[in-house]
Amino acid sequence: MHDEFYMQQAYKEAVIAYNKGEIPVGAVVVVQDKIIARAHNQTEQLLDVTAHAEILAVTGAANYLGAKYLNQCTMYVTLEPCVMCAGAIAWSQLGRLVFGAYDVKRGFSRIESATEGTNNKVTKLLHPKTLQVGGVLENECAELLQRFFQKLRN
Amino acid sequence: MHDEFYMQQAYKEAVIAYNKGEIPVGAVVVVQDKIIARAHNQTEQLLDVTAHAEILAVTGAANYLGAKYLNQCTMYVTLEPCVMCAGAIAWSQLGRLVFGAYDVKRGFSRIESATEGTNNKVTKLLHPKTLQVGGVLENECAELLQRFFQKLRN
Repeated sequence: MHDEFYMQQAYKEAVIAYNKGEIPVGAVVVVQDKIIARAHNQTEQLLDVTAHAEILAVTGAANYLGAKYLNQCTMYVTLEPCVMCAGAIAWSQLGRLVFGAYDVKRGFSRIESATEGTNNKVTKLLHPKTLQVGGVLENECAELLQRFFQKLRN
Repeated sequence: MHDEFYMQQAYKEAVIAYNKGEIPVGAVVVVQDKIIARAHNQTEQLLDVTAHAEILAVTGAANYLGAKYLNQCTMYVTLEPCVMCAGAIAWSQLGRLVFGAYDVKRGFSRIESATEGTNNKVTKLLHPKTLQVGGVLENECAELLQRFFQKLRN
């Protein structure tokens, strides 16, 4: 319920991206029931592949807090983070990550799965203390992305 | 020879970071024998875990070129990129990556090694077309980092 409310706020950011012709991904960062950062994907507008919603949200939240680490924060993001963003979230020591749609091709968890059940060291990409939940408002978040890519192809 | 020259330029950036009390990592981006971006780690100064030299260099180079993709560029960085930076370099479709010191704990290649020789899909973190070379001026780059961490402990 709570998670759905904040995911809706992230979804609103994704819609802003959609309306600008950006791949529609949005994120918010919450601490003690307060949104301290809102961001959406701006890679086209800024001509910058690093301008994913999560990177901008980590930077915005740290800026708000005046501190580098986000252990007390929850990030809500409409799509499973990519490897770059998972790395940023790991460095930030985020307290909790909640994402909407799964990203089978580009999501960070495919890397973790590839090392599971092998004798090789399991390589977690997030910080070991970061809690995570996927699939919150999954359908809405995924549908917005599908609509965007369908429009691109037409 | 050529690679060593540009790595020295990246090293100069690392020294700037060192003198500011930042973990000393520097990077430059080169296209057609011209340096189009210089950056050093600024995580402390900007209170931003995403402000690694490579992220700032990708942003700076794209800004210079007015284009998101860096297929024609070589990035020189004094330390093997972390997972976050490897992800950014992958999104940028960088032409060639040259790094100095290896980072056994945090470098991106440990993830690739963990899936090698398994039946699981080998998960490369860089773009498949990105050429890569490690160990250029390795000793100098590593020694600067060691000196920094030794100073921290004293």
